[in-house]
Amino acid sequence: MAKPVNKIAHPFDKTRLEALLNRRFFYAPAFEIYGGVAGLYDYGPPGSSLQSNIISEWRKHFIVEEGMLELDTTIMTPAPVFETSGHVARFADWMVKDLKTGEVLRADHLVKNVLEARLAGDKEARGLAAQPQKDEDKKKKRKDKAKPTAVQLPDEVVAEYENILAQLDNFSGPELGELCRKHKITNPDTDNEVSEPQQFNLMFASSIGPTGQHPGFLRPETAQGHFLNFSRLLDFNNGRVPFASAQIGRSFRNEISPRAGLLRVREFTMAEIEHYVDPEDKTHERFGEVRDVVLDLLDRNVQVAGSTQVTKMSVGEAVDKGVIANETLGYFLARIYLFLTKIGINPRRLRFRQHMSNEMAHYATDCWDAEIENSTGWTECVGCADRAAYDLTVHSNKTGHPLVVRQALKEPIVTEKEAPEFNKKVLGKTFGKDAGTIQNIVNGMDEAALLRLKGELLQGTATITSSDGREFTLTPDLLTIERKTFKQSIREFTPNVIEPSFGLGRILYSLLEHSFWSREDDVERGVLSLPAVVAPTKVLIVPLSAKEEFSPLIREVSSKLRQAGVFSRVDDSNTSIGRRYARNDELGTPYGLTIDFASIQNRTMTLRERDTTDQLIGSIDEVITTVTELINGSIDWAEACRRLPEYDGTQAV
Amino acid sequence: MAKPVNKIAHPFDKTRLEALLNRRFFYAPAFEIYGGVAGLYDYGPPGSSLQSNIISEWRKHFIVEEGMLELDTTIMTPAPVFETSGHVARFADWMVKDLKTGEVLRADHLVKNVLEARLAGDKEARGLAAQPQKDEDKKKKRKDKAKPTAVQLPDEVVAEYENILAQLDNFSGPELGELCRKHKITNPDTDNEVSEPQQFNLMFASSIGPTGQHPGFLRPETAQGHFLNFSRLLDFNNGRVPFASAQIGRSFRNEISPRAGLLRVREFTMAEIEHYVDPEDKTHERFGEVRDVVLDLLDRNVQVAGSTQVTKMSVGEAVDKGVIANETLGYFLARIYLFLTKIGINPRRLRFRQHMSNEMAHYATDCWDAEIENSTGWTECVGCADRAAYDLTVHSNKTGHPLVVRQALKEPIVTEKEAPEFNKKVLGKTFGKDAGTIQNIVNGMDEAALLRLKGELLQGTATITSSDGREFTLTPDLLTIERKTFKQSIREFTPNVIEPSFGLGRILYSLLEHSFWSREDDVERGVLSLPAVVAPTKVLIVPLSAKEEFSPLIREVSSKLRQAGVFSRVDDSNTSIGRRYARNDELGTPYGLTIDFASIQNRTMTLRERDTTDQLIGSIDEVITTVTELINGSIDWAEACRRLPEYDGTQAV
Repeated sequence: MAKPVNKIAHPFDKTRLEALLNRRFFYAPAFEIYGGVAGLYDYGPPGSSLQSNIISEWRKHFIVEEGMLELDTTIMTPAPVFETSGHVARFADWMVKDLKTGEVLRADHLVKNVLEARLAGDKEARGLAAQPQKDEDKKKKRKDKAKPTAVQLPDEVVAEYENILAQLDNFSGPELGELCRKHKITNPDTDNEVSEPQQFNLMFASSIGPTGQHPGFLRPETAQGHFLNFSRLLDFNNGRVPFASAQIGRSFRNEISPRAGLLRVREFTMAEIEHYVDPEDKTHERFGEVRDVVLDLLDRNVQVAGSTQVTKMSVGEAVDKGVIANETLGYFLARIYLFLTKIGINPRRLRFRQHMSNEMAHYATDCWDAEIENSTGWTECVGCADRAAYDLTVHSNKTGHPLVVRQALKEPIVTEKEAPEFNKKVLGKTFGKDAGTIQNIVNGMDEAALLRLKGELLQGTATITSSDGREFTLTPDLLTIERKTFKQSIREFTPNVIEPSFGLGRILYSLLEHSFWSREDDVERGVLSLPAVVAPTKVLIVPLSAKEEFSPLIREVSSKLRQAGVFSRVDDSNTSIGRRYARNDELGTPYGLTIDFASIQNRTMTLRERDTTDQLIGSIDEVITTVTELINGSIDWAEACRRLPEYDGTQAV
Repeated sequence: MAKPVNKIAHPFDKTRLEALLNRRFFYAPAFEIYGGVAGLYDYGPPGSSLQSNIISEWRKHFIVEEGMLELDTTIMTPAPVFETSGHVARFADWMVKDLKTGEVLRADHLVKNVLEARLAGDKEARGLAAQPQKDEDKKKKRKDKAKPTAVQLPDEVVAEYENILAQLDNFSGPELGELCRKHKITNPDTDNEVSEPQQFNLMFASSIGPTGQHPGFLRPETAQGHFLNFSRLLDFNNGRVPFASAQIGRSFRNEISPRAGLLRVREFTMAEIEHYVDPEDKTHERFGEVRDVVLDLLDRNVQVAGSTQVTKMSVGEAVDKGVIANETLGYFLARIYLFLTKIGINPRRLRFRQHMSNEMAHYATDCWDAEIENSTGWTECVGCADRAAYDLTVHSNKTGHPLVVRQALKEPIVTEKEAPEFNKKVLGKTFGKDAGTIQNIVNGMDEAALLRLKGELLQGTATITSSDGREFTLTPDLLTIERKTFKQSIREFTPNVIEPSFGLGRILYSLLEHSFWSREDDVERGVLSLPAVVAPTKVLIVPLSAKEEFSPLIREVSSKLRQAGVFSRVDDSNTSIGRRYARNDELGTPYGLTIDFASIQNRTMTLRERDTTDQLIGSIDEVITTVTELINGSIDWAEACRRLPEYDGTQAV
């Protein structure tokens, strides 16, 4: 596909983009005619098609390419699972209440919005106005942001605010409360004081079955569904690690007061990979393929020092230097980068940020977020966490079901140790029902204790004491202790889990921002330059009119495109060809085919490219072949221009 | 694909199928290591792949082929939506409680199980034993069915039971209670009496947001998400009907005591179409294409008469005779038939049953179910309901948002009628604030009343009475009434909705039953003869061993297949080629490619067909082309056998 030529003619205008997305029904507030519910959105035809194309590309890039095992597990989950996983106790955000109105706000968002507004006011007072579109943005979202007023702050206060904002995700609830008191942060909508932060669990609760006795939660992530099936997955993979399971599905988080469109929602589609790996060997077989991929990295040390300055570094170098902990983590960060840029995310607006220690989810030992910059700032769109053995261990401990890998050792491990052997008959005769107690005591002894006992027995008698204080005297006819050789040929271990987790709605929204621009000659004419691979419709067929005479050709072209695997739509609505193309530029349709009287007479068609609006002309079959190759990515627009003559407006009229 | 040759060698054995599905992780009880939860299942790799292939075929067959508008709406739904739709009041099943243990049972299932068991016992007593696999089946599901005991029943009781069972879905809750009393139906597990039937709402309840003040439900169907977006969809379709929206997504029903595997679950993926049509014109443009499709029909009159005898009839004839109400309904029944048989459902075990009047959902005016026969009997897998204008009307009335089509009339409708015209100035002066009341009274009058008033005014004065009994005297200077011509150029109407609604899990399970058989020479060797179009993996690549020397060829073949759009897997596990093929017969993989030393020396491969186990041999590229065409369905196995020589076991060794 050709690069958009005019993309920079107008500054990005969020209001126009939002109007376009609403007008063309990419998505809309769910239950809109009932007044809507915050944080719930419905995807219309272009939005759901864009989403399903992103999913389909994700499946190819990750599942098919790497032979991952796909799963589809349930959303409704009985409470004990999330009690074990730690979500019932810890999957919560801190909220504060407006002390007069009772309005509920998320504590960290409140601190962020108020401090950012004060810094903006300070800039204004110092005569350093923010960029115009940011201002406009702020006006639109007045409810969401504290209104900036032009008040200059002392330099040290500015520095303090900036430091707080750089590590905002690192504060606990009580610390956020402390910040509110110290910096007199109130509800910006009412100026009322707010309560101490309280925890609010983000899982939606329900009840399973007719008796009301089985509490359940809607999953806040798909991950537990993978972990609970680990034994079956391992078995399916013939007992070998590493391997990965993958799942695309809906999850739910009862957000406190979502106000950021698709970026913070209560119900969302996610795509998660759980890659199971030997904790002693986190190398990756295909790491060499991504070694040279260069990423923008923002590690935790830089952030704790109050900075947000990224470092450009190849994945290979980052792993070598220990910035990224291991090859497997590095491999996935690079693969995430390749996926996001393939579907159209601007690589200059994509960075990888490491979590600070207090920020990490309770199950993670290390975590990097792929953050995409959009009009609201940098947004976490993919998390890539090392969950270590946390989940498999807690579920295994709780249920008694081993979630482990058993691996035949190439070289058996040979060890020598002291081993007691009982003469059970004599022991039973001598001690009756205490014989079992005695065996348990001896079997539970460590090497040193056994050696001591062995020595005493060699002297004639030995005395041991039970946990309830009773003493037993043992003699060599009751047991012997000897040094024996043990051969271990199986190694058993709980694998570690590296988890790339994608929030598809956030990626989709950021992609729409990155793709949107207006034509140089008319700011009203918006274009979404979506790559063909994810565009909702690949080809628009535009007959000159809805007249019957064009129908056979439309059917022929549609059917040939369908056979070539290209999804097309016909627009024969009662409006000019130009307006129809403009509408489809808004829908992101990369190519258009015009069918007119020349098509009937000469069997020619014109081929239009969305971004340049250039048109070529050729025979119907030539054009179909060319557009199919354009969409498959096997040729680009420059090559198409070499193949087919430019349409100068005369050939076909 | 060749037809399975040995399919009839062994009778269907459900126990073997279930063992296979469990062993190969097609699906398993969710939260199994926590003891599981009734009615919740996870799909493993082959199951989720089978499901996503069925979905992908569904998308092609319905959405792409007919240009439907796809949607993706939220599951979590605020309570007012389901209050309006009627689900809060009426989406319920009847349950009874065991009076001693408190166990909860679904009332209609209880009646069915107990009466069927008595009829089975009667048959046994009369020496008319049921078929062997059904007996075995019953043993396995002892918990689910009442245990039959060999007691002969009087002929008239047998007739009565059969009559009840034929119209079981037609009974109300109180009627089911009456049946339990009359026929002494108790809980078969305990022999205890059961309570009167009570309604239990099947929606899972939750609460949206942190305040607990916004009750919500998980949707029990995706349909409401379509209806609430009707205006936007119509707009997207340029204001024209008919058109259809389509959605594939998760829905939830808190079933009372689900025990039937994938056939009755609490969380399931459904695919729903809402086809919006002019209520005065339910013809269908493409009806001609399906006119001659012959269906097995079971209409409501036959059932109410106590029979389950189907009639074979073409869709054209059924619509002509009024058995199927209209072309659109008939069109979809035929398209459903074509879809189900394309993915592998046995057409001889597929029938279309019309709902009886009491059985219909509260929103439906007519409904046909596509029922598929499996080991549990005939199971509803697709419902095809005419919801008329019910949903759009109730939501429109509740919200005040018009959900209507406005259509320009080709010929404007011209009508003449009496029209009052007020002299508002004089009216205001004379009557003050009662002027409005007077206008409302007169504007609300029908034609006859206006004519009467006009006559009186011509006489000089007229008296009208308000609803609260006050009288007003009118004179010709206050208003005149004249006959005027009105031209209506827009017709406004609420479209009717025809809804085909697919339960994908039920279809998937029935398909697995229809596909399963055992090899003639070894009943332990199960095969799933899934059509290539839905098979989880299309091609298995089997190298002679995991040795490094085969790797370049494996990579070449995998990559060429991937380029041809064919999903393959490699099995290089440490077991014989025969065992690896047997494992993949269980997974339903239609074709296998063997790579051995001859492949390295001569660049040849063998191609194995799953059902016949026949093997052909050819050059690597020939075999790849052939297998690709086999999978695309452009050639069949007979054609492949003409192209490539049979492998006799010598060429490649």
